Amino acid sequence: MEDEPKSDFSCPVPLPARDKVLLGHGSGGKLSAELLREIFLPAFQNPILARLDDQAIVSVDGLRLAFTTDSFVVSPLFFPGGDIGSLAVHGTVNDLAMGGAQPLFLSAAFIIEEGLPMETLRRVVASLREAAASVGVEVVTGDTKVVEKGSGDQLFINTSGLGRVPEGVNFSADQARPGDRVLLSGSIGDHGIAILAEREGLEFESPVVSDSAPLHTLVAAMLEVTRDSIRCLRDPTRGGLSSALNEIAGRSQVGIVIDEQAIPVREEVKGACELLGLDPLYVANEGKLIAIVAPEVAEAVLAAMRAHPLGREAQIIGTVHASNPGVLAMRTVLGTTRLVDMLAGDQLPRIC
Amino acid sequence: MEDEPKSDFSCPVPLPARDKVLLGHGSGGKLSAELLREIFLPAFQNPILARLDDQAIVSVDGLRLAFTTDSFVVSPLFFPGGDIGSLAVHGTVNDLAMGGAQPLFLSAAFIIEEGLPMETLRRVVASLREAAASVGVEVVTGDTKVVEKGSGDQLFINTSGLGRVPEGVNFSADQARPGDRVLLSGSIGDHGIAILAEREGLEFESPVVSDSAPLHTLVAAMLEVTRDSIRCLRDPTRGGLSSALNEIAGRSQVGIVIDEQAIPVREEVKGACELLGLDPLYVANEGKLIAIVAPEVAEAVLAAMRAHPLGREAQIIGTVHASNPGVLAMRTVLGTTRLVDMLAGDQLPRIC
Repeated sequence: MEDEPKSDFSCPVPLPARDKVLLGHGSGGKLSAELLREIFLPAFQNPILARLDDQAIVSVDGLRLAFTTDSFVVSPLFFPGGDIGSLAVHGTVNDLAMGGAQPLFLSAAFIIEEGLPMETLRRVVASLREAAASVGVEVVTGDTKVVEKGSGDQLFINTSGLGRVPEGVNFSADQARPGDRVLLSGSIGDHGIAILAEREGLEFESPVVSDSAPLHTLVAAMLEVTRDSIRCLRDPTRGGLSSALNEIAGRSQVGIVIDEQAIPVREEVKGACELLGLDPLYVANEGKLIAIVAPEVAEAVLAAMRAHPLGREAQIIGTVHASNPGVLAMRTVLGTTRLVDMLAGDQLPRIC
Repeated sequence: MEDEPKSDFSCPVPLPARDKVLLGHGSGGKLSAELLREIFLPAFQNPILARLDDQAIVSVDGLRLAFTTDSFVVSPLFFPGGDIGSLAVHGTVNDLAMGGAQPLFLSAAFIIEEGLPMETLRRVVASLREAAASVGVEVVTGDTKVVEKGSGDQLFINTSGLGRVPEGVNFSADQARPGDRVLLSGSIGDHGIAILAEREGLEFESPVVSDSAPLHTLVAAMLEVTRDSIRCLRDPTRGGLSSALNEIAGRSQVGIVIDEQAIPVREEVKGACELLGLDPLYVANEGKLIAIVAPEVAEAVLAAMRAHPLGREAQIIGTVHASNPGVLAMRTVLGTTRLVDMLAGDQLPRIC
């Protein structure tokens, strides 16, 4: 893992221009990046948005706040290990946590399709409340809109979050440096496969359960070890591990090489992926994080992660290199090295 | 307008329990209030949310911030005087402004139905950007989700906003006191009728244009006159003037009496309402505000409003009383007094 890969990687062919929005534009992959680059970024030119992190760090009268937003359109609403309510809390709390912020306040905005059973709404709201209470964030403001039957799909939820960023914490995807280590907090693919199984009625010997969980206390434990030697945190949600690492490689203009053998994947997830022709590197997670850390603190941060219930299976899975900037590569179990590109479109739509 | 109304008002019959969400639950009227009271408030018990203001005022390390969220599902996306992009900025900026806050940052989250023409998205984003730039708020964080054709309706946008609350500003709907005056910044019903006309293909001799506008500078001008004698500001959006004043009457446990003759309504809006059987008191506005102010400052605040381009037609339209707590009444042009209740359901769905 210490050597740099020898091969040269060629750029993928650019995607043709699209005149309509496709499902893949919401995938977190290449089409999403295209939409961002061609429509959103040119419109809202500002240095905060241009950082393309999962959260904005803004300063108000010297106070550093993390501010983030996420809409949740997951289908089905309920799945093994969670539902749209708990997911809406965990997703936004995790976006704050990836900025090193302590989550403080949430907003919750509901777009309801006419005819949604009141009992469904009640269950989702109860789950959202419970998730918020267990994190210790308060839902302080909200909104409800109702659209006609056929103009929505049961229920969409937007949560925005506000958190306090501790002094000395400055994570960003453009800070990975050659020599840094890549840490992963646990097994990948659980959330995506759990949703897919529920949606398609697949049954496994041991059921796959979403890893949906709030990561703020895991991050706090890592911050106890070091604040300034953590370059960047990401939760590999839509687009999975590969999209998150590709983004970091691109933003930091470094090469990242990961080691297939070091990446934990549950047997049942591996099996489901083989059966369905999916690659776990691209499957969404909702309770995992990647950390890029300076080499000298890697072992200590790893130990802190493993001491936390949500990081017990944490691994050092790769290294940052100066060569092949913008490229993610993986040493396979067979000993070869392959390029791990971002997906163009969508493996699994409406996963979150 | 100074005397209290003599008649007694009886409580309306309670609505039966519903087991499904209806369009009216998004109306801003009684059904919305019911949903809030029965599902959302019990779940998220906290004093900030319980204030039921358009924005949460939260304190972080002594800094007072306004935090608000709104989803926009307006149909059609483009209408005379605006579109979903500018509306998404104005709506959230106004929610911040109604708390007396200076708007600072916005998030923007898009839920796109597969197949939306890229050109439509581009136009909406350009309009959102322009509206944000003209207010001076920065869009610092965002999100994009795409749902399958038939699972959405073109485009929904959520914006959340963050603002700074100046010292000495403490507006809340529970602070109206007997003797206070009710000020209205201009004519009512323009937005709702503009949307309806566009949606239904109605044509008027002089076209009705939405009043969609950001009210933060109007509020700033009012704050120059007084900070502590303004009890409460509201922008009468969904549910119109009547819902906003009913809410204040209920939260403050006061009676409010307004004077029909003093309420500006454009001739074309009046005509359209008569034709369509609508009451302008219930039609949505997106660039108007109501202020409840202490009697001794009413004339000075009115003068400040009239000196501002968005308050030129401002009027004192009513008075707060101790009698009939929770009730809004109106002296009609005929000299009678009638109760102005909240609507149960929806006059016009998807108005914002």
